[in-house]
Parts: sequence; C-alpha cells; structure tokens
Amino acid sequence: MTTKGSKAKGKQRSPAKATGRTREATKPDAGKNETKPDLGAVRAQIDGIDRQIQDLIKQRANWAQQVGKAKGKLAAAVDYYRPEREAQVLRRVVDRNDGPLNDEVLVRLFREIMSACLAQQEPLKIGFLGPEGTHSQQAVYKHFGHSIHGLPLASIEEVFQEVEAGHADFGVVPVENSTQGTIQSTLDMFLTSGLRICGEVELRVHQHLLSRAGRLEDIERVYAHPQSFAQCKAWLRQYLPKAEKIPVSSNADGAKRARNADDAAAIAGISAATVYGLKSLAGPIEDRPDNTTRFLVLGRELFPPSGNDRTSLLVFIKDQPGALYHVLAPFAKHGLSMNRIESRPGHTGLWQYAFFIDIAGHAQEEAMHRALAEVADFAQEVKVLGSYPVAIS
Amino acid sequence: MTTKGSKAKGKQRSPAKATGRTREATKPDAGKNETKPDLGAVRAQIDGIDRQIQDLIKQRANWAQQVGKAKGKLAAAVDYYRPEREAQVLRRVVDRNDGPLNDEVLVRLFREIMSACLAQQEPLKIGFLGPEGTHSQQAVYKHFGHSIHGLPLASIEEVFQEVEAGHADFGVVPVENSTQGTIQSTLDMFLTSGLRICGEVELRVHQHLLSRAGRLEDIERVYAHPQSFAQCKAWLRQYLPKAEKIPVSSNADGAKRARNADDAAAIAGISAATVYGLKSLAGPIEDRPDNTTRFLVLGRELFPPSGNDRTSLLVFIKDQPGALYHVLAPFAKHGLSMNRIESRPGHTGLWQYAFFIDIAGHAQEEAMHRALAEVADFAQEVKVLGSYPVAIS
Repeated sequence: MTTKGSKAKGKQRSPAKATGRTREATKPDAGKNETKPDLGAVRAQIDGIDRQIQDLIKQRANWAQQVGKAKGKLAAAVDYYRPEREAQVLRRVVDRNDGPLNDEVLVRLFREIMSACLAQQEPLKIGFLGPEGTHSQQAVYKHFGHSIHGLPLASIEEVFQEVEAGHADFGVVPVENSTQGTIQSTLDMFLTSGLRICGEVELRVHQHLLSRAGRLEDIERVYAHPQSFAQCKAWLRQYLPKAEKIPVSSNADGAKRARNADDAAAIAGISAATVYGLKSLAGPIEDRPDNTTRFLVLGRELFPPSGNDRTSLLVFIKDQPGALYHVLAPFAKHGLSMNRIESRPGHTGLWQYAFFIDIAGHAQEEAMHRALAEVADFAQEVKVLGSYPVAIS
Repeated sequence: MTTKGSKAKGKQRSPAKATGRTREATKPDAGKNETKPDLGAVRAQIDGIDRQIQDLIKQRANWAQQVGKAKGKLAAAVDYYRPEREAQVLRRVVDRNDGPLNDEVLVRLFREIMSACLAQQEPLKIGFLGPEGTHSQQAVYKHFGHSIHGLPLASIEEVFQEVEAGHADFGVVPVENSTQGTIQSTLDMFLTSGLRICGEVELRVHQHLLSRAGRLEDIERVYAHPQSFAQCKAWLRQYLPKAEKIPVSSNADGAKRARNADDAAAIAGISAATVYGLKSLAGPIEDRPDNTTRFLVLGRELFPPSGNDRTSLLVFIKDQPGALYHVLAPFAKHGLSMNRIESRPGHTGLWQYAFFIDIAGHAQEEAMHRALAEVADFAQEVKVLGSYPVAIS
C-alpha cells in the first residue's frame, strides 16, 4: 500500500451550480491558513462535487452499454469483461494519483465503478470457495467489485467444475499463502482441467496485538510464531521494547496462552480475537505488507496483454539428466524472469514430473513467444495456463 | 431495489483530452441506431470520464479534510462523522438518479467515496458481532463503507462494552429479522446500557432455487418453508408452474431433502448451497425484497435530524390499568406513526414493564418533542435510545 501524502495541488474547480454560501469557502489546499473554514460552505462545495461525480458515473454507465453493444446487442457481462482493459484502467488511476487518498482506496473505488457499469445487463457469476465470509469471498469482491453474483461452493474442485460447466463465468481459488506456502490441491487441478488463469488477486492478512487486558502499557510478554515476530519487528521495538518475546508453534497457540494473563499479548490475525475472546490493542502492526494470500481467477479463455502481465506454465518433462535446466534456459536467454517454480508428480506416467512455472510477461509477447517455442523442444508438453495482469494494489 | 431504465438524456461531455479516435464514437444515448459503435472510441470516452471522476474525488477528499479542520485541527473521523449529513447526501443521490444504474448501486458507490474521504486521518473503528464474514460484518460495510477498521467481537454484549469503553467508535448489532423476529438479547442490553442508537441498516437476504441437478427443466418438486413459498410465488408461477410445492418446517430441512433426488429443489439462502452440496439453479428469486435483517448502529451520542428519521424509545410503565394506552395516545394525537412496539420484563422492579417503541420522526422535531413531554406524565421513565436516519436502500 502506497500511502501518499496530502500534496494536493491547485486545480480546484467550482461546482456547476454553487449555492449562495459557496463564496465563503476557503480553498481546500489553503492548508496553511489556520482559520477554521465555514462548515456549511465546505459542505456546499462537496454537494456540488457529488453532483458532478454522479453525472459522470451516469455517462460512464451509458458508454459501458455501448461497449456491450459493440460486442453484440445487449451482451451479458461475461461477453465483454476484459481483464487486461480493467488492469490498464486501474494502473492509470494509480499513475495519476497524487493524493490525498491512497492508491489502494482509489483502486477500490474504481473497481466498484467498473463493476457497477459492467453489471447493467447480466452480472458476472463468480464461483468461490465458500461459505460466505471466507477470504476467497473477499478476494472475489476485491477483484470484481460488489456488482456480481457470488456462488459459494463446497470445494476448490467444485469451483473448477462450475466454471468448466459454464454455471459460473469465472472462479476464484487460493493458490499460495506467504506463511503457509502453496495450496497443492489448486495446482493439481490444472493437471487435468482445461481451464485458464485470467487474473490473480493478492489479499493482505493483517497482524494485530491481541490481549485480554485493555492497555498496551500492561503488556510484559508477547507470544507469536517466529515469522510473526519477524513481520512486526519494528513495531515491537518501538512500542514494546521491554516486553519478553516468547516464540510459539502457531499464532493460534499464542492467542490461547495470552488468554490466561492480563500482562500477556499475542500477535495474530484479527479473527483470532473473536475465537479466543481477546481484544485488539493495536493493529495492523506488521512492518511490511508481506503477509498475503494469492488467489487465481479461473476462466475458459485466454486474454490479450495488459502491458504488465505474468504467465503461468505447466511443463511436463521426462526424468532425464539436465531436462529441467534445458527447460529453464530459454527464459533466461530471452531476458524473462522466473517468479516461481514448483514441482509436482505428474499424473500421466511413471518417472515424469510436472512443473508449475510463473514467468514475467505475456505469452503473446515476442520474447515469451520465442522462449516457449524453444522450451517445447525439450519438454514433453508445455501448457500455457494463462497470461494475466499482475495483481494491482 | 429500484431498477431504473436506460433513459439517459443528452449532456454527454467530451473528455478533457480526447484522443484522435474519439470523434468516431456515437453518442451513448443514440441507442436506436443499430450500427455497432467503435470499441476504441468508446473506451477513449470512458478514459476521459475516469480522469474527471478521479479529479473530482480528489477535490472531494481535500474538502473533507476541511470539514475535519472546521471541527478541530486534524480531527479523527469519529469527531466529524455525521450520520444525518451522510443520509442527506445519499438521499440526494437517489433523488437525482434517472438511470441507467439503480439506486442501490449508486448509494453503494457514494458510501464508499464518503468512507474513503472520512478515513483520511484516523478511520472509524466499528465493533460488530464476529467472526469475520457474518451478516453483521456485511452490515458494517454497507453502512460505513470499506474504509474503516472493523473489530469482530465475540458477543452482542461485548459490542456494547467496547463502544462504551471507547475502544470502538460505533457498534453494529442485529435487532430484527423479518423471518425470525426480534433479537431479544440486543433489546435487553438497552435496559442497562447508556449507549445511543445513531443509525439502522437493513440487509436483504436473497432466496435461491437450490438443487443437485443442473437444469431447471428437471425439477418436479420444490421444498421450502411456507413463508419462502409466499416470498417467491410469482417466480414459481412463471418458471415452475407444474412443480409440486412441498412445505417443510425450515429451508434447511428442505435443502437436506432436495439433496436426495435430481428432480427436487429447495428454496433457501445461497449459503445453504455450500452446506448441503447443492447448486443454485436461479436466484435471487424472491418477488419482493422483504427478507431482511435489521441492524442498529450504536454510538455514545445523539445526532441532529436528517429530515427522515426514526426514534427508538424505551418506556418503563407501572402495571396499572390503561397505562400503555396513556403512553401511546400522545403519539397518535400529534400525528406520529408508531412503527413497532415490543414489551420486555423490566429489570428494575416487580410488576413493571419496559416497552421498546419505534416512532417515525426525530426527538428534536416539534411534534415528537410535545408527545414525549406528555408521555412523561404517564410513564415511570422515558429514555430516548436514539433518533436516527431511516435506512437507505
């Protein structure tokens, strides 16, 4: 999350129809003038801005209908949903942003506006690992906005099935957690499924300091998994320099222990507060936003490049000396960086391996295109699972 | 939900910096012209609109900082959050709306914009009945937008406690479900708590047709609670006129039965699909949006009128003939309609009753003010729990 400072510059427009009180308002960027602005005048300014925003959203919705028509009269959202276009729109929002709102908030607002415009005929149907309220549902809303029909499903397998059968337009499944690693069952589905990856979503999980006591000053011991201590190092040094740090096997275990004393706290996700009857004394307290879960968006087709994409490959190779080296060499040769590699036992024969490889770039781009052709000479099979925009905010 | 037609009229502006392709774009409201619009030109129009929306949101955020300053330098959100002002802004959005987006979607977008603007210094902290993912959390986001800190708590009692102690700025608790009735434990908290009601949220729960079969044509029997049948009458008449309707004691029971046959379906909320391994063949299928849960927003103070408010009273009366009649008469006399009344055994003495009464209007309005003065003569105690804006969309 990039939190931008309040460096608003000029360009303040008067609302189309200013009320009589408007002239009393000071400019919002005249921040160094410490006289208190007139509340009624400021509200009149905001009302004028709201009127303009609403008019523009209306225009945008009307134009969005034209995109639908360009694709075919009264098309359903799935027919003209373009992940690469959405990614480009959101990147422009981030590029233009010079505060005071941060990138994450603005991206969320524009996601919702696009979602609303897209859903005018038939909203997208998105399958996810239910029940409602899971992180998967949060990932669905983060990626597609709230103007969709969410279908909570019982298993990752079912998400694949429902998208394959066309009951869902897209599916969202977890694939990687920065603390727990890869979710194998998701990767394994690609060994037999014909579905494509057409997006990724990253969801941050925040750390909180939980305790049954009410005040930070009372805390003399903190329980947490060593990884969580590492994540919150700077915060702990600043706010609890004298507290004893006691490593435990899991944050849940730490929360359980913290329940027994007023002078103890645990580092854990906020949901542990409810489960263990603790209060959040502070949060989020992680130094860097690296505690994330990564989700894949599943669809039935491939999409064109957005300008900043990632390609997921499934490569089957024979178990022969140097095979993996030969498979990876072309990417290095063409200057493509590998983000991730994961080996899985293949299902199609003995002594054969499958590799899941993530590469920076899009399969339709020249360098990737050439590298893939060269890889094909050494691999038994190369399957492009998808080329999709890198997650935004 | 009011779904408005696509009756956009004129007023389409050119984006500030139109690209070369822009002139090819047809007007979005020239709908009767069946020529397909040029996709690139339409997108250029949308890009221009997005630029303007973003600029206006930025201006709005800057003005919102001025509201904070008008209340005191760099005030926290809780110091200048005004529920009556938010309600007025949203009602204006609904009043102005002439499509193509529906009221519910526009209200959501403006809630998020207000939420983002308000959260610039210190976001609101909202306590709710956890864990994350509950309907209470949905109600929090619906009312306050996503730019808040949500605190999931273990019980309704704890939500009250955390708001009282100031650890949460506001709390959101369920109070009424249109199918299950009043949530008594919430009302009882007001017998001893000093908290005030400063808002209400209504959350619709949608009905779906769930089945293990994949096609609507296969359904010959539908299970549901009689109330759910009543809610989906028109839909069933249109889409399943020949199917046998079998009433059961609960929708969960119906879902369980529907699991055993390919030609059976059940009417239930979408979350039952996950629990019972069924698929949604259609949804939402309710004829009217009357399947709602109502939540109260708890705070520590009363707020001024928004123009369309409701007042919740807690009235203690002695058990003497005609007491309740005398308490209710003043409201009728002053033309104030009563939305709801609920009696509870009082905690302060034998043979004494407490009544929770909801009245249309605000306690600071003339008629209500007079009625309350008259009620005070007959009641042992009258407590204004809150006067707050009627729920919007």
